[in-house]
Amino acid sequence: MTRLVLKFGGTSMGGPERIAHSAAIAAHEASQGREVAVVVSAMAGETDRLLGFAESLGGGLGEVETDTALAAGEQASAALMALALKARGLKAQTVTGWSLPILVEGPPGSARITAIAGEPLDEMMRAGIIPVIAGYQGLNAKGRLATLGRGGTDLTAVAVAAAVGAECDIYTDVDGVFTTDPRIAPEAARVERISHDAMLELAAMGAKVLQTRSVEYAKAKAVTLRVKSSFLAPGQSAGTEVVEEAHLAERRVVSGVAYMRDQARLSLHGAPGPEAAEALFAAFAEADVAVDMIVQARARAGGAVIECSVSGRDLPRALALAQGLASRFEGLETRSETGLAKVSVVGTGLRGRADVARTLYGVLAREGVSVRMAATSEIKISALVDGDLLERAVRALHGAYGLADG
Amino acid sequence: MTRLVLKFGGTSMGGPERIAHSAAIAAHEASQGREVAVVVSAMAGETDRLLGFAESLGGGLGEVETDTALAAGEQASAALMALALKARGLKAQTVTGWSLPILVEGPPGSARITAIAGEPLDEMMRAGIIPVIAGYQGLNAKGRLATLGRGGTDLTAVAVAAAVGAECDIYTDVDGVFTTDPRIAPEAARVERISHDAMLELAAMGAKVLQTRSVEYAKAKAVTLRVKSSFLAPGQSAGTEVVEEAHLAERRVVSGVAYMRDQARLSLHGAPGPEAAEALFAAFAEADVAVDMIVQARARAGGAVIECSVSGRDLPRALALAQGLASRFEGLETRSETGLAKVSVVGTGLRGRADVARTLYGVLAREGVSVRMAATSEIKISALVDGDLLERAVRALHGAYGLADG
Repeated sequence: MTRLVLKFGGTSMGGPERIAHSAAIAAHEASQGREVAVVVSAMAGETDRLLGFAESLGGGLGEVETDTALAAGEQASAALMALALKARGLKAQTVTGWSLPILVEGPPGSARITAIAGEPLDEMMRAGIIPVIAGYQGLNAKGRLATLGRGGTDLTAVAVAAAVGAECDIYTDVDGVFTTDPRIAPEAARVERISHDAMLELAAMGAKVLQTRSVEYAKAKAVTLRVKSSFLAPGQSAGTEVVEEAHLAERRVVSGVAYMRDQARLSLHGAPGPEAAEALFAAFAEADVAVDMIVQARARAGGAVIECSVSGRDLPRALALAQGLASRFEGLETRSETGLAKVSVVGTGLRGRADVARTLYGVLAREGVSVRMAATSEIKISALVDGDLLERAVRALHGAYGLADG
Repeated sequence: MTRLVLKFGGTSMGGPERIAHSAAIAAHEASQGREVAVVVSAMAGETDRLLGFAESLGGGLGEVETDTALAAGEQASAALMALALKARGLKAQTVTGWSLPILVEGPPGSARITAIAGEPLDEMMRAGIIPVIAGYQGLNAKGRLATLGRGGTDLTAVAVAAAVGAECDIYTDVDGVFTTDPRIAPEAARVERISHDAMLELAAMGAKVLQTRSVEYAKAKAVTLRVKSSFLAPGQSAGTEVVEEAHLAERRVVSGVAYMRDQARLSLHGAPGPEAAEALFAAFAEADVAVDMIVQARARAGGAVIECSVSGRDLPRALALAQGLASRFEGLETRSETGLAKVSVVGTGLRGRADVARTLYGVLAREGVSVRMAATSEIKISALVDGDLLERAVRALHGAYGLADG
């Protein structure tokens, strides 16, 4: 009998009606002859509510008592899901991080799962009882609850699937991953299958349908992962399947076009070498300024040019830190540009394919979109462009790579 | 070193500000050289919110998954209290029903505490760590959470106090028990000390400052119990101490005057004997009609008169049930009267003291308040009077027994 873990996030648990609908989806899967387990997040808004209380009492993320408060959110929602399944005539039982247990280690607020007691789940599932597991949490060696960080329920779901030999359906508010944002390009199509790496690139770039660590974990444990919508009728979400790259029939070089708004570019000119770069990124790390793209080139005169992109919100801090280096590095000049956006072409078929880059530059040039900075990874080419031209760039690239063909 | 358990109910935990204030009270007690533990309820409204969700998903009280959902409320509030204590520079740690554990048995929603692991609490308190214990819940033999029923956090507090050899302060929104309702008689005075039995009578009659089982438990385990207000500055609530009757300097015969509005009287005349009474109360029990006072007398003619009081809300159902008996008992006549109220004089000094009854009848007669029905227990005399005259009756009795002298 095939086994399936269904994960329902906060919006899928956003009140009794949403919970009842998610229960109907789980019931549908069980009716198809599958042994089912369910992993849930706290009800929408609940984690923020509890965290707000904790913060106003001097506690923040990364504090053990805060974790105990937050973990209550998933305990309650798991119990409510169990009730909803029982109301449909199914057998169900709440399982928490402490009751199973799900063992974790590491600091509160960002703990790692080290072991899941699979046998009790195994027994329940064989007895036809649906375990409803509180996500996002586990028990540490001191017997205290610790949470896994934002999106940690995805990780719980994948880890549970690995522990009981199940496939894993992550339910969210979109019917899978799309070739680009349908709000920008209405012709965007659902991606049927995608590799773990391409999924990671899309997730890291703002298409936050899956938590990064959960994708890595699924890849490492060879767990079949699907992204589906809990806002469709039971059985109606086709979703996107995340599969081993080797299993992909590589019909398509490019999987999708992603984007990120509110980007800024920071340039260091006339720097005396790697020392300035090291000092800059050390200062950024200390000040928690997140750096995205980094490019380095040698200018015709005056040494290396180092450029990086940061969020527009972080730019003032980043600029101040960069200018603070001027006293240490003679001749250092700082420049910046804001109001930019990043557009990225992602696909496992990109590796070494110069034609993909050629298309990107050609298409953007024809659209009058100048590329301010570009960087590539194994499966991604990203370009920083004028923010006002972002949507034109996304639509043009989406069309040029033939993504609208479905 | 003396030990003290402080219990904070829902209103004392009604949001971050209230929690911070309750933490200040606990900190004050710790600063007086006491080893302190704290037991908390869920934040005000939280249990009702979670129960509402559970009910709309087909779960009610008495269902194991509902209990798991409800118990999350105390887990969160305990963690928030621990944070608030830490913010004051104290050491504190959340303790839940499952983590200690607090062992319980019996049905979900009305479980009984069977054992509390006192040693971990003992160790924490000796190490200067304040255990903050989630009330209202425990772990049953199946490893599931079960709740103790409404007011169960009082019981947790008393049981914890018994387990660690502590006294127990129950914090609520009133500064102890009063000789009567200050809204009716502004001269009402705080009762400094009261016996467990008198406290039980007052609690059962609507002065719901303490849960009945917790008072019985405190009496059985000889735990010193105080009722205090968390709405005063730390150290400012004198409160009421519940003590062994033997320890009471019986300066006072009467402890207080309690009342209950919206009462009704139901009379059965011409009944052929105890069979009719039995049939009536069997019908009430089946229909969940709560009967309060029951009196029986022999009328000059026509056999016994049986009278009982029920809430005005229950009267229509009670009356229909009584009239339904007419077909089975020939000559049975039913009468009823609504718009009544009950006034009760409570005190351990009442036993066998006819003068207390004499005063009651005399005072009410002088005030023009006719007694419709009266009943006595060991430590209480209750009279059913016209609801419109209730306040006059309460004030007159309160004055007549010298309760305003403080």
